[in-house]
Amino acid sequence: MFSPALEALVDALRCLPGVGPKSAQRMALHLLERDREGAQVLALALGEAAERVGRCQRCRNLTEAPVCAICEDPRREAAVLCVVETPADVLAIEQAGGYRGRYFVLMGHLSPIDGIGPEDIGLDRLQTLVQEQGVEEVILATNPTAEGEATAWYLTDLLAADGVRMSRIAHGVPLGGELEYVDGNTLMHAFSGRLPVSR
Amino acid sequence: MFSPALEALVDALRCLPGVGPKSAQRMALHLLERDREGAQVLALALGEAAERVGRCQRCRNLTEAPVCAICEDPRREAAVLCVVETPADVLAIEQAGGYRGRYFVLMGHLSPIDGIGPEDIGLDRLQTLVQEQGVEEVILATNPTAEGEATAWYLTDLLAADGVRMSRIAHGVPLGGELEYVDGNTLMHAFSGRLPVSR
Repeated sequence: MFSPALEALVDALRCLPGVGPKSAQRMALHLLERDREGAQVLALALGEAAERVGRCQRCRNLTEAPVCAICEDPRREAAVLCVVETPADVLAIEQAGGYRGRYFVLMGHLSPIDGIGPEDIGLDRLQTLVQEQGVEEVILATNPTAEGEATAWYLTDLLAADGVRMSRIAHGVPLGGELEYVDGNTLMHAFSGRLPVSR
Repeated sequence: MFSPALEALVDALRCLPGVGPKSAQRMALHLLERDREGAQVLALALGEAAERVGRCQRCRNLTEAPVCAICEDPRREAAVLCVVETPADVLAIEQAGGYRGRYFVLMGHLSPIDGIGPEDIGLDRLQTLVQEQGVEEVILATNPTAEGEATAWYLTDLLAADGVRMSRIAHGVPLGGELEYVDGNTLMHAFSGRLPVSR
């Protein structure tokens, strides 16, 4: 229906998550009718990133340097390591502020059904890191899903022998959330994880 | 927070319509974690399209050829010309099927407030086309918005002198729509545009 170059662009845009045929068409026409410069800039940025961005040698986060900025930062505590599933999790924690330790990014979670084992999420490297770089506390911040929980349990077993302090981030009612609208699982989790208070 | 190449990609993705900072981040991470090939293909397609796609000399639709496929097609009736605002409108009509004439794409509508006058939407070329290429009917399919209507009225005046048959596509209750949920303007339009029936 469109010309071949336009068709190719609409097809290529569909590799973006959440972009179906209609949005892809809208995006392609928008770029060509109103923002050719943006299209060129995006083409360059995509090429650059796809070619140059790799993983941090230490924490496996995405970066084009050999070691990422957080691992390089001398002000971050090397003794505290937070294990997360994805780079987006690192970003969410950094944006919340307050955490001053370092990260280890699994780039996934254990999932035997999909053939994802310990090596695929870098657990061998994590163990070496914990043993050799003076890590004193490992904070497990994998997602509270079945796979995330399983990964957290696996890690607890794996690192227990190294004498490192292990903790799991708290799960419960979100701040500003209303009990009425919180799902039952979360609510039960909040009850079983209750903390003593006193005055 | 991210590495510079990743930041640049997230920023560049925001030139896409409907993509805010969160979606841009999700798209960038998706491409880098899971679809580098897609990213490369998209980079190429964007560069190609931004560089090569221009406008059809005859109908102003987007194409990388001098004249677009619809204008080149000898099976399309040259005597009927449908005037639309954007290439997306051409696509919508083509997908509906049934229309066998050709198009003229304004690439916008008259909008004195934004400084968009007759020349900016190619009305001089449209008039030449109508006068010189044996057009017998012009179907006005601009949007039923204030600017679209104004453009349609302007066109009616402009082409009246050329002795060409002019028509406006019908506006009313959409098929499958329920009267109950149709807005008042559309309903009034449907009443005033009622057609005689008989058996």
